[in-house]
Amino acid sequence: MGREDRAMIVRLRPETDEQESEALAAALRRAGLDVTLLTLGGTPLLSVNGRAVPPEVEQELLRHPAVEKLLRPDRPYCLAARSSRPDGTVVRVGPVEIGAKQPVIIAGPCTVENRDQLLRIAEAVRDAGASMLRGGAFKPRTSPYSFQGLGERGLELLAEAREETGLPIVTEVLDTEQVELVARYADMLQIGSRNMMNFALLRKVAATGKPVLLKRGFAATIEEWLLAAEYLLAGGNDQVVLCERGVRSFEPATRFMLDLNAVPLVRQLSHLPIIVDPSHGTGLRELVPPMSFAAIAAGAHGIIVEVHTSPEAALVDGRQSIDPTTLASIVRRVRMLRDMVEELVAV
Amino acid sequence: MGREDRAMIVRLRPETDEQESEALAAALRRAGLDVTLLTLGGTPLLSVNGRAVPPEVEQELLRHPAVEKLLRPDRPYCLAARSSRPDGTVVRVGPVEIGAKQPVIIAGPCTVENRDQLLRIAEAVRDAGASMLRGGAFKPRTSPYSFQGLGERGLELLAEAREETGLPIVTEVLDTEQVELVARYADMLQIGSRNMMNFALLRKVAATGKPVLLKRGFAATIEEWLLAAEYLLAGGNDQVVLCERGVRSFEPATRFMLDLNAVPLVRQLSHLPIIVDPSHGTGLRELVPPMSFAAIAAGAHGIIVEVHTSPEAALVDGRQSIDPTTLASIVRRVRMLRDMVEELVAV
Amino acid sequence: MGREDRAMIVRLRPETDEQESEALAAALRRAGLDVTLLTLGGTPLLSVNGRAVPPEVEQELLRHPAVEKLLRPDRPYCLAARSSRPDGTVVRVGPVEIGAKQPVIIAGPCTVENRDQLLRIAEAVRDAGASMLRGGAFKPRTSPYSFQGLGERGLELLAEAREETGLPIVTEVLDTEQVELVARYADMLQIGSRNMMNFALLRKVAATGKPVLLKRGFAATIEEWLLAAEYLLAGGNDQVVLCERGVRSFEPATRFMLDLNAVPLVRQLSHLPIIVDPSHGTGLRELVPPMSFAAIAAGAHGIIVEVHTSPEAALVDGRQSIDPTTLASIVRRVRMLRDMVEELVAV
Amino acid sequence: MGREDRAMIVRLRPETDEQESEALAAALRRAGLDVTLLTLGGTPLLSVNGRAVPPEVEQELLRHPAVEKLLRPDRPYCLAARSSRPDGTVVRVGPVEIGAKQPVIIAGPCTVENRDQLLRIAEAVRDAGASMLRGGAFKPRTSPYSFQGLGERGLELLAEAREETGLPIVTEVLDTEQVELVARYADMLQIGSRNMMNFALLRKVAATGKPVLLKRGFAATIEEWLLAAEYLLAGGNDQVVLCERGVRSFEPATRFMLDLNAVPLVRQLSHLPIIVDPSHGTGLRELVPPMSFAAIAAGAHGIIVEVHTSPEAALVDGRQSIDPTTLASIVRRVRMLRDMVEELVAV
Repeated sequence: MGREDRAMIVRLRPETDEQESEALAAALRRAGLDVTLLTLGGTPLLSVNGRAVPPEVEQELLRHPAVEKLLRPDRPYCLAARSSRPDGTVVRVGPVEIGAKQPVIIAGPCTVENRDQLLRIAEAVRDAGASMLRGGAFKPRTSPYSFQGLGERGLELLAEAREETGLPIVTEVLDTEQVELVARYADMLQIGSRNMMNFALLRKVAATGKPVLLKRGFAATIEEWLLAAEYLLAGGNDQVVLCERGVRSFEPATRFMLDLNAVPLVRQLSHLPIIVDPSHGTGLRELVPPMSFAAIAAGAHGIIVEVHTSPEAALVDGRQSIDPTTLASIVRRVRMLRDMVEELVAV
Repeated sequence: MGREDRAMIVRLRPETDEQESEALAAALRRAGLDVTLLTLGGTPLLSVNGRAVPPEVEQELLRHPAVEKLLRPDRPYCLAARSSRPDGTVVRVGPVEIGAKQPVIIAGPCTVENRDQLLRIAEAVRDAGASMLRGGAFKPRTSPYSFQGLGERGLELLAEAREETGLPIVTEVLDTEQVELVARYADMLQIGSRNMMNFALLRKVAATGKPVLLKRGFAATIEEWLLAAEYLLAGGNDQVVLCERGVRSFEPATRFMLDLNAVPLVRQLSHLPIIVDPSHGTGLRELVPPMSFAAIAAGAHGIIVEVHTSPEAALVDGRQSIDPTTLASIVRRVRMLRDMVEELVAV
Repeated sequence: MGREDRAMIVRLRPETDEQESEALAAALRRAGLDVTLLTLGGTPLLSVNGRAVPPEVEQELLRHPAVEKLLRPDRPYCLAARSSRPDGTVVRVGPVEIGAKQPVIIAGPCTVENRDQLLRIAEAVRDAGASMLRGGAFKPRTSPYSFQGLGERGLELLAEAREETGLPIVTEVLDTEQVELVARYADMLQIGSRNMMNFALLRKVAATGKPVLLKRGFAATIEEWLLAAEYLLAGGNDQVVLCERGVRSFEPATRFMLDLNAVPLVRQLSHLPIIVDPSHGTGLRELVPPMSFAAIAAGAHGIIVEVHTSPEAALVDGRQSIDPTTLASIVRRVRMLRDMVEELVAV
Repeated sequence: MGREDRAMIVRLRPETDEQESEALAAALRRAGLDVTLLTLGGTPLLSVNGRAVPPEVEQELLRHPAVEKLLRPDRPYCLAARSSRPDGTVVRVGPVEIGAKQPVIIAGPCTVENRDQLLRIAEAVRDAGASMLRGGAFKPRTSPYSFQGLGERGLELLAEAREETGLPIVTEVLDTEQVELVARYADMLQIGSRNMMNFALLRKVAATGKPVLLKRGFAATIEEWLLAAEYLLAGGNDQVVLCERGVRSFEPATRFMLDLNAVPLVRQLSHLPIIVDPSHGTGLRELVPPMSFAAIAAGAHGIIVEVHTSPEAALVDGRQSIDPTTLASIVRRVRMLRDMVEELVAV
């Protein structure tokens, strides 16, 4: 990516009103620049994209009363960089806070299979102490002949499970045409690993204003991942949680290689919260507890795990699902560990 | 993927008419099965998805006069398997045949930048002897601040370049919402590497009936790639060309690692034509000629390369673009080589 | 690897004396079999290599009074498999136990540079509470022009540092011709990542009887790693500690990708203790503390880290070395964490 | 690797005699520098290792009558760089030239199994038109229980096969302690993939003066590979042939991923000849012919393939061995292709 691809960010004074911001943006556009109006944590920003700002325009900007600061990011992402919000972001999904002290534990079935299955698992998940419910209504399946999920019926069941348990729900959205539908039901929208670079989807999901769970592409670099987050942030949505879920490697013993190096690295590079998915990241039920603990010890803000009341009978991914008893044990220990960790990561 | 994920394919006699096929499909659906009606090379097929066909239904099918054969694929893909069409598929894009004797050479700029640039390159590409023109109107860019392509204006320019040169055009479609628009202009729709597992897009592109260029995901296995092709074929579109374009690896000297093993392997496993993209597969202009020759010698049906009249000035990916003189030299030699190769691969 | 590559292991009764074992081995050799005499944790074993035992010989073995059991491993490795010693192995290096309750912390410079540097670091390492001292005298360097270590002079300095501090020392041996020399000085011999498949070296190091630290090859599968351990065990040496140190991947942000999945997996598959090297596994000083904690939380029996009193001035790998203050903080916290973890991994 | 790791190379005038070179080296050593005396293609060189040459010493060197030029390489390797011998190196193994116009075809069994097998294959290989015979006497086996080769008996049989057929032989050497023994029998010594970073072995093999076949480590970068070659060249041996043999990847369909990008890249970066091993690089017999052609078309100076008269019965790696008829067909076509290619790569 050449230098010209990097944005200049114009940070405006917090008190600048919309009219003023718009006027400034319009002036820059008249000077031939491509400008987007954003807010990050309440602060209005102008992002100047694609080509260098001429020196005379830069001088004018510096003299403008509404302009607080010009930021020229030294990395390709800017809004996602820790420097743009050093204290970190807390994402709120209903009563749940992600990125704060308490670790978040999101649990549920890989796929919503039917009403009974979902409600049984949802109650077990709540009883085990988890904070949110996950479950797939639209499933990205490698084969066109595999079960593709229940679709809208699955969303209805998730909403019913939320009513029953009080747990906010997160579910995956696969395509721009489904965004509105899924956003009507879900409390948090998940961008799956295969869609991390589906930029049209990122833009449309950003526009819903809903909190987003952005999974890492299974062969995406950390920089590409933060740039995908930048699409969401540049779309005006700062309620973004990153999720490490394992990457492709030469090792056949586990389904993916969980890259926990990413956890402390992302905490250093970005202000966004990061959680870990040890179910997909290992593909092996027995590895879910130890890798949950490892994730928290590395500094993750939470975990997302697949749970099934009868793992062996699951339609999809049963091999990596844990049962509710194991979940309860993980929840208890993750909380203990996280208390210890806040101090640890401050080393 | 469990056994239950594999389809049974019911091959009907060629003379079966639509009404008969529909009636048979309806009967199977009443028996609780999920059935899709397809044609592959003119032969009507019923694909039974998702769960095993009960023995009594199977017996009935075998006795039915319209049923020619029941196919139970031993690989997860079925329509894409060579066994389903041993003589291979020839894909037609206007006057161009891909998968036949003549190698296809697709060339053009990474991105449509403006009218002058495109027409100049298109003419140079035609004069160099290429068979089709490529060029991006919608670009998948890792950064939200990078130039994202001219959009519909780019499509108009591509259509104009086709008028001027007579070359059919292939261009990428990024999102389900653009499919109709892009299909109005393009002769062939490209599914890019980042979208190989965008299954909603695969389905929608299949439905256009247009020829499709399906690039391999940069971390997709060959089986996953053929399953992506299966989505297109199961959607009723058999005009699919596969394109190897390099995968992620630990090697920093080249942008991607071009996996030419995939060429003879795909020719063995599938009936679909396969071409190679040495521009993205190496990221280095100097490697484009030798890797074009290697691709053809490995049995590829053609190549797709990035060409620019002033590579150093290209807005995107200039480092991997060749100039028209080099293209002319590649075209000449690829043709010589391909003549020799048809015999070679028959070893 | 074909079936014929797998050994049958004949476990003899514990009271069998050497003469009896030898006699039985001789008889099998007369029957044309390739037999090795071993002991694993005091139990005498005969390993029959390379080809299947004829049924009549098998019958005879089963009737033989010294034979307790015939083991036909279902994995390619046998002595390294957990089934061959379910309670786990504790490796003893002087007063240090690896694989027991207390986590082991091995620390020291990447390379022994000179007397002052080493003694200063060794004392700092002891004061920080580490259990063993590491330091390279012979260094495997990618370039022939890089500093290759002080050689025997480095070993003398390590021995002096042991005198001063009481810490046992571990150091790498690069070649069969150095094994005797290094074994004269070191308490534990390290097989480095680049030599994990140097089978001649494995055999020779096994023969010294010294405890061995076996690093994972940076592109070795877990099965290949356990087979390398099998070389050591089959050579009669069961004092083997495995060390995960990161593998090659496409991610450029860290030097290697630390594969912590390997920790719980190895604990499940093998009885050998496993420790983790977050210095090489990340290449970034800031990631050493969190990844040390993650390793322990995943179930590792200890860590090995690079420490330098002036990291910026280190001749080799300064970018990944931590200072003694950080080490002290890691030691304290690793101990707390490990207390909690023994219970955790029992989930 | 820091700047201090790079050598300065002092190129002496061709007519400089040994005494003069030694005197100059001695003078530099007295100035505290680490100096090695080398010759590259007959030209005497002094390699100054490890630390920067002080300016005043540099001035003196420039004034010295025997000094032709000071080279400060911009890459970590120097002697292996193309700049140090722009016309390329031709390696001679008996009557065979590698790196010249004629492609070299090395063929033979993976492993020497017995006299009959070897002689039968050797004759078939000669009759098929190959230029050299390969065969393993010492085999690097992942499992200690696998057949490890016939050892010296295998070397004797290889020598006998050479007598019979007139073909020079190349065989692998696994350990420094075997170097002398193997060098007594072989015409060319092979460093295997697992030993590419066994630096002690590289040094000892260099010292034999025998031609060396240096396989790429299966997870080695191209730069690391050229640095391994640099060890051989810096050891005074310039008879080095590089061999691409596939690298580790996430793709399970082939045993390794053959990286043909490496062929044109190595030809650009280095003067050393490069050949390709499609047998290990694919692991699949059917892929050996097309990938042999691809290798040659990419610019390789030859290929090395595994041949067996009864591939299904081979003790090791039968799945990737071809039969002599296929070899004969490959030889014929590789020669045709190579004639065409010398012109191709000159594009």
